[in-house]
Amino acid sequence: MVASCCMKGAELMAEGYRIERDSLGEMQVPANALYGAQTQRAVLNFPVSGMRPYPAFVWAQTMIKRAAAEVNRDLGLLDPQIANAIIQAAEEVLAGQHADQFVVDPFQAGAGTSHNMNVNEVLANRANQILGYSLDDPKKPVSPNDHVNMAQSTNDTIPTAIRLGCLWRLPELIAAIDDLADALEQKAIEFDDVVKSGRTHLQDAVPVRLGQEFGAYAKAVRNDMERIVTAANRLRRLGIGGTATGTGLNAHPEYHSRMVAKLSELTGHELVSSGNLFESMQSMADPADFSASLRTLCITLGRIANDFRLLSSGPATGLDEIRLPAVQPGSSIMPGKVNPVLAEMLNMACYHVQGCDLTVALAAQAGQLELNVMMPIIAHNLFEMMHVLIGAINAFTTKCVVGITANREKAAGWLAKNAILVTALNPVIGYLNGAAVAKEAMATGKTIKEVVVEKGLLTAEQVDELLDVRKMTEGGIQGIAAAG
Amino acid sequence: MVASCCMKGAELMAEGYRIERDSLGEMQVPANALYGAQTQRAVLNFPVSGMRPYPAFVWAQTMIKRAAAEVNRDLGLLDPQIANAIIQAAEEVLAGQHADQFVVDPFQAGAGTSHNMNVNEVLANRANQILGYSLDDPKKPVSPNDHVNMAQSTNDTIPTAIRLGCLWRLPELIAAIDDLADALEQKAIEFDDVVKSGRTHLQDAVPVRLGQEFGAYAKAVRNDMERIVTAANRLRRLGIGGTATGTGLNAHPEYHSRMVAKLSELTGHELVSSGNLFESMQSMADPADFSASLRTLCITLGRIANDFRLLSSGPATGLDEIRLPAVQPGSSIMPGKVNPVLAEMLNMACYHVQGCDLTVALAAQAGQLELNVMMPIIAHNLFEMMHVLIGAINAFTTKCVVGITANREKAAGWLAKNAILVTALNPVIGYLNGAAVAKEAMATGKTIKEVVVEKGLLTAEQVDELLDVRKMTEGGIQGIAAAG
Amino acid sequence: MVASCCMKGAELMAEGYRIERDSLGEMQVPANALYGAQTQRAVLNFPVSGMRPYPAFVWAQTMIKRAAAEVNRDLGLLDPQIANAIIQAAEEVLAGQHADQFVVDPFQAGAGTSHNMNVNEVLANRANQILGYSLDDPKKPVSPNDHVNMAQSTNDTIPTAIRLGCLWRLPELIAAIDDLADALEQKAIEFDDVVKSGRTHLQDAVPVRLGQEFGAYAKAVRNDMERIVTAANRLRRLGIGGTATGTGLNAHPEYHSRMVAKLSELTGHELVSSGNLFESMQSMADPADFSASLRTLCITLGRIANDFRLLSSGPATGLDEIRLPAVQPGSSIMPGKVNPVLAEMLNMACYHVQGCDLTVALAAQAGQLELNVMMPIIAHNLFEMMHVLIGAINAFTTKCVVGITANREKAAGWLAKNAILVTALNPVIGYLNGAAVAKEAMATGKTIKEVVVEKGLLTAEQVDELLDVRKMTEGGIQGIAAAG
Amino acid sequence: MVASCCMKGAELMAEGYRIERDSLGEMQVPANALYGAQTQRAVLNFPVSGMRPYPAFVWAQTMIKRAAAEVNRDLGLLDPQIANAIIQAAEEVLAGQHADQFVVDPFQAGAGTSHNMNVNEVLANRANQILGYSLDDPKKPVSPNDHVNMAQSTNDTIPTAIRLGCLWRLPELIAAIDDLADALEQKAIEFDDVVKSGRTHLQDAVPVRLGQEFGAYAKAVRNDMERIVTAANRLRRLGIGGTATGTGLNAHPEYHSRMVAKLSELTGHELVSSGNLFESMQSMADPADFSASLRTLCITLGRIANDFRLLSSGPATGLDEIRLPAVQPGSSIMPGKVNPVLAEMLNMACYHVQGCDLTVALAAQAGQLELNVMMPIIAHNLFEMMHVLIGAINAFTTKCVVGITANREKAAGWLAKNAILVTALNPVIGYLNGAAVAKEAMATGKTIKEVVVEKGLLTAEQVDELLDVRKMTEGGIQGIAAAG
Repeated sequence: MVASCCMKGAELMAEGYRIERDSLGEMQVPANALYGAQTQRAVLNFPVSGMRPYPAFVWAQTMIKRAAAEVNRDLGLLDPQIANAIIQAAEEVLAGQHADQFVVDPFQAGAGTSHNMNVNEVLANRANQILGYSLDDPKKPVSPNDHVNMAQSTNDTIPTAIRLGCLWRLPELIAAIDDLADALEQKAIEFDDVVKSGRTHLQDAVPVRLGQEFGAYAKAVRNDMERIVTAANRLRRLGIGGTATGTGLNAHPEYHSRMVAKLSELTGHELVSSGNLFESMQSMADPADFSASLRTLCITLGRIANDFRLLSSGPATGLDEIRLPAVQPGSSIMPGKVNPVLAEMLNMACYHVQGCDLTVALAAQAGQLELNVMMPIIAHNLFEMMHVLIGAINAFTTKCVVGITANREKAAGWLAKNAILVTALNPVIGYLNGAAVAKEAMATGKTIKEVVVEKGLLTAEQVDELLDVRKMTEGGIQGIAAAG
Repeated sequence: MVASCCMKGAELMAEGYRIERDSLGEMQVPANALYGAQTQRAVLNFPVSGMRPYPAFVWAQTMIKRAAAEVNRDLGLLDPQIANAIIQAAEEVLAGQHADQFVVDPFQAGAGTSHNMNVNEVLANRANQILGYSLDDPKKPVSPNDHVNMAQSTNDTIPTAIRLGCLWRLPELIAAIDDLADALEQKAIEFDDVVKSGRTHLQDAVPVRLGQEFGAYAKAVRNDMERIVTAANRLRRLGIGGTATGTGLNAHPEYHSRMVAKLSELTGHELVSSGNLFESMQSMADPADFSASLRTLCITLGRIANDFRLLSSGPATGLDEIRLPAVQPGSSIMPGKVNPVLAEMLNMACYHVQGCDLTVALAAQAGQLELNVMMPIIAHNLFEMMHVLIGAINAFTTKCVVGITANREKAAGWLAKNAILVTALNPVIGYLNGAAVAKEAMATGKTIKEVVVEKGLLTAEQVDELLDVRKMTEGGIQGIAAAG
Repeated sequence: MVASCCMKGAELMAEGYRIERDSLGEMQVPANALYGAQTQRAVLNFPVSGMRPYPAFVWAQTMIKRAAAEVNRDLGLLDPQIANAIIQAAEEVLAGQHADQFVVDPFQAGAGTSHNMNVNEVLANRANQILGYSLDDPKKPVSPNDHVNMAQSTNDTIPTAIRLGCLWRLPELIAAIDDLADALEQKAIEFDDVVKSGRTHLQDAVPVRLGQEFGAYAKAVRNDMERIVTAANRLRRLGIGGTATGTGLNAHPEYHSRMVAKLSELTGHELVSSGNLFESMQSMADPADFSASLRTLCITLGRIANDFRLLSSGPATGLDEIRLPAVQPGSSIMPGKVNPVLAEMLNMACYHVQGCDLTVALAAQAGQLELNVMMPIIAHNLFEMMHVLIGAINAFTTKCVVGITANREKAAGWLAKNAILVTALNPVIGYLNGAAVAKEAMATGKTIKEVVVEKGLLTAEQVDELLDVRKMTEGGIQGIAAAG
Repeated sequence: MVASCCMKGAELMAEGYRIERDSLGEMQVPANALYGAQTQRAVLNFPVSGMRPYPAFVWAQTMIKRAAAEVNRDLGLLDPQIANAIIQAAEEVLAGQHADQFVVDPFQAGAGTSHNMNVNEVLANRANQILGYSLDDPKKPVSPNDHVNMAQSTNDTIPTAIRLGCLWRLPELIAAIDDLADALEQKAIEFDDVVKSGRTHLQDAVPVRLGQEFGAYAKAVRNDMERIVTAANRLRRLGIGGTATGTGLNAHPEYHSRMVAKLSELTGHELVSSGNLFESMQSMADPADFSASLRTLCITLGRIANDFRLLSSGPATGLDEIRLPAVQPGSSIMPGKVNPVLAEMLNMACYHVQGCDLTVALAAQAGQLELNVMMPIIAHNLFEMMHVLIGAINAFTTKCVVGITANREKAAGWLAKNAILVTALNPVIGYLNGAAVAKEAMATGKTIKEVVVEKGLLTAEQVDELLDVRKMTEGGIQGIAAAG
């Protein structure tokens, strides 16, 4: 077996070649490829990972081209026939066609020139076909640089595409998180009456209800969702129209604002001007911050997954307070074993996303002067983070969370043995007396009640009222009424 | 020389010892120490780094004690005389007194029990003194657990202290960032007329003005400042009153809301209820997100520092477009060398803060069930991040940014040689012709104008108008008027 | 366009289904699939990323099965006919056949149970076919658990497969690094006579030769190569035979040592016993350390790529001391621009690999008790790191390094203006005099020689001898002879 | 309370000032300070963190000065009287004197110029005192630059000091790790007969012995120790003598090799030439790799600490298989609680060190051309990592590991309920039968034995022999004898 990447897309079955040209000269391109010379150079220059661009990157870059063709046409700068052909070609790509024509490795030319030219060339050639020209016609009228890329540069379109691509997938991600929070809240209600031992430092602590734990998980997830929405809102700030260095050279004075409006209209996302086209080109801080918001989500999700694995540990030799759905045999050697595989998968997804986040942060700080040339790897990792999180969260919610059941007997059993319940007596007997009682109870195996009564600290009735475990989960000072 | 930590605080000069007690028994404590048995145990248990808590951690923990004494007094739960003595003791600590009494290593008991008890014991003993008892009086009335810690647990006070401590230092941080942005904006105005080569991929690109570059830096810094404020606002959500596991056991039903109000009043910060006391105890996501917002700032600051070092490189063998103030000799061996030391310092501060941020993220995801026991190291790193950033940014602004000057001759000199100016001719002669012109100019040493005129593409007058470099920095399509 | 993963493999074109069984019951499986019920469950349970396992993971897992069949057969535990069929099936997979049968997402069951069962099932079914049974024959004799997985567990085979898979790709990686070091050394020779300004802090410094710089790059790369080899040697320590928890339950007492020997023989890699089968199952420290060695390589490679981009900056507005080969047009908008795209690609690859390394480190520390269930994501990231590095380094070497040329004129031009050459006079005139000379030279535009002679510090002849720039790159104290 | 760094050293109590000079002019310096103008500038330029250098950094930098004075004297370049005074001054510093004179913030001039000059100035002034000159004598003969720094540059001494400083603390670190491994091995012997449930995925698994678990911990720790030693060996490669840019300008041709020999002799560490003085100056890969080896150790230690906390969880509501020593009360509110504080402290130390490691990695890749100016923050973080690890490991070993006891009853109790013991029947009854047995046992509460006998799969005697739990921890195939 040859060691090669598993993720290579299907190769174009080229039947012969045609010649395409760019500013460095001629190139052989597969005869039926929609892309042209610069894409082909990139394919030859960057045989690195065998991976292809995430659909979000193709979609977003194409959307910019589609909007620009219309804006430039309306401004009287682009021949309407050519503009309309570009628009039609772009609509095809936006609908998912020609997906096999986007062939540039994520590890490519700095800033994403090759990705931009791949899209420019595919749209130009497809537009030429639409206008009735064959791919090898030397008189093809539509130029990838002068027409499809009109008033654009890699330098302003790629940052814009990163923003649009993330916004494109945002609803799916938010829906996934929201569904998870809903499922957790549902369980919070379902488990509201399950009184159990709290555990702090993994050590016996005063009681909580299982529903309170799940309610807290839901709340934490919702907080993270809000954070992600806030971070994503900063992605709505577009610097499209800065062209090569932020000055807007070669773009019509109205181009920037028209593009923002047109992209809002076409994508249905509320978009705004960044207010500083230089900053938008220089700075990847907004994407890095969005990445960080996903990292924070992972901190929460990883924690929840860990808790689930701990609470469902056993069943015989662990806590076994909750049961996760059994979705597949757990071991190739140990029969009958059922593992918390969905929670484990979520943990792995979270670690993976945190690695991606570091890449984004490293790449984001590598900007120099007018540009950050590391954008392609920022794009790749951001889209991978979103893609993996959407898949992982949805699987976790539907195959794990919704099917969780409480093991009420186990929960009650643990609680019954827990000497730390003595804490509820603090307001009446004081911390140091409490500590002495707990110590004696643990050493002798007596109950807290027995020790307290023996020591003459309280009557049996007082203890019973103070140590109502359900009440203890409802806060307040048990001692006030009881000992008052 | 003995290898030991450089950062050890002054040791208490103990003149003999006294005996203090806790639930594990008796301990020898320095006779004049305000702390007690549990602090002493922690000193003995954790001889790790020799570091002491950041003042923000002491201040915030003490502020909680001070507020709780008042709230519990007003609720009729705490003897007014004791409460008032605790309040007075706390006010002393808040004013900076007794700073040498906070002696617990940041690497300590999980959750910060030792830090909490250190503050409890110091305030209890100081309150006892205020009430007229000597430290070794066996009848000292004020108890660290029953009185100072009343209605509190390490588990709800430490998360609250982390939030309050960050908010305490926030104004200094925001002021530092704001001053930096102001200074950059000032320079943007000062350098508005310095037309220079843009550089993308570090390669010749179309012109920008130095003022535009500095304006973009200022904008990026302001964006990050907004982000930090947004993240800090989530720190205003307090879970104080959850006590041991979030249920609020042993706290008065009104305690939580009264504490939020009292802390708002005492600190002057707008504080709110977290809405879920379990989540507030379980989750360190808000601090981790705040940490991430500092990381994003570092991404921007590190980038700006790198640009400054590049733009001021040379002077003879580098770009030398800006000059940074010379604040100290640059080399121990090379006379006359002056290095960009403030920018380098800022880079180092940013790398350091990014390391701290990883620690915070790692610790934040280590929460288990009702609690995250890694809080002390989260606190230490957050306070270190803020402290280092405040110092580093202020030094950078005052000793570097405000003194930067532009080297107008160098900037003009570079620009004059830049063949990429041909880009402005794109709308008139097209990308491929432009490339051919640029290539010939670079190969022959001719100017763009000479080549274009020779090739008969444009007249000399047209070229002059199109290649007005100042106009090129103002956007728009030069060709429209010129070639029209 | 539907938002979905770009990296999805070709779906099996199922023409109907057959029924397969595992311990949880029946499953519909595509009629012609070689895999069985557990794989199908995993496909349904983990629709996360759409990615498939790296070939190294399939190869390594299969190699273990192939070796185990032979060892168990030779130990008299496995029916020779079944064993031989398994061996034949495994040889087919090792030769690259049936690659489309490995369909489990990297985000899967903890520990990689699903990956292990995918390989078990494919080999069992293929062995059944070899023995003349159809896939839907209820009497298929070969069992994935009892025969293919005999004496094995996910828990000992996955750690072993991670080690073998890395070793499988190691020669390619080492060859790539070695070729890069060779190319750099070649350039070190070629550029040995190019005397140029050194730059420290990006500021003018005493001279070096371009060849010395490239020699240092080569040396740094070779050091990293040695480090990787050292780390990889620890991957040779195998814990195969620990089975479920490290005890070796259900494996023949000779199984472990026979497996180590058999795998050595079959793979051609020198393999040894880990010496502690429990540690081998618990600990992912060896893979994490190997990952770190790749990170260190990236630190070096990223630095070299940055230097190349800086030294080739311009050409008009930057240092332009070296020229990188022009492999594609640099800009979609700026004609004539040629960017350092291979160096930029290498930077991106290095940032990506550093992100993967964090994932590996996070996952490695998540081991609990007898097992680390995060192994699948460790495997995925390690194999991605190696794959990306091999591709990126080879492209960088062949398309960039070997074609670099020196710009001798520029190098000489920069050096001529450099006042820091005064350093060579230190031993004769002292540091403080040197600083005064340099300052005056920079301020007045005079040469160092002029100032020194004017000040009467040295004669013109002395200065000429002391400031021989070539000699200055050869070390030693210029002043001894000159001023003596 | 004023918000300021907790870690500020004692201020010099200056009684008036004296004037010192450097190449930028005059400076006021505290009258009794041993440092001079450049140090004072650094104090004023970098009021960042208030931290001071780790002793390892002062020690190592001073050791270089001490060796250089001797080597330069022996080479006839440095006046013997001056050399001897410098040597004597250095010996004082090496013995721990004058520690309050090293006052430069870690966030300082790039490359560490200020640290180098601080040491140069202190040694020069102290040497002047030794030679009978007062600090304010304008005829002080010893110069910090020309004499103490002779044949040196910040650029070659700081990388050397980082290496020497790490080697200085290495024996303490190795001893700490070794003691920990010893303690774990001691426990492995002590717990060798404690048969308990294995747990994989935190789920019931086949038995192991507690001693096997501890033996694996010890083995993992020893592996990491070897790794650290290997990485540290690369720190022995010195580039001292490269001076400003690696060429060795202004150093005697024999200086490099004499310095390596002299430093070996003086420090007692085996040191070698790096073989390429340019690489030694450019590259921080060796320190980054050493840092990574500490990270790997933390991965192991964090895992062990987590396992200890899990195995000691409860006591009533957790696993409670081991008991950690009770060293302090566990809670400020819950009486009787005892937490695993030493393990928690170790976790925090490990997270902290991992953050430091990221800083080192980020700083290491920021090298540019001849130098990495981020060295001061690399130094600070490396020394902090070592310092914290030494303290944390020693505390963990002595206060936790050596006092761990096994809870044999609990261990036996868990095991008795574990249905996964059925695995041992695989070789006799097959995986699918085993799964059915386990499922029935779990559902009905019957024992494995009852179900197997009822189903007629085996006789009671066979089951008894096969399910000998101690034997199951010794590997092999239980079924061979029993069912044979």
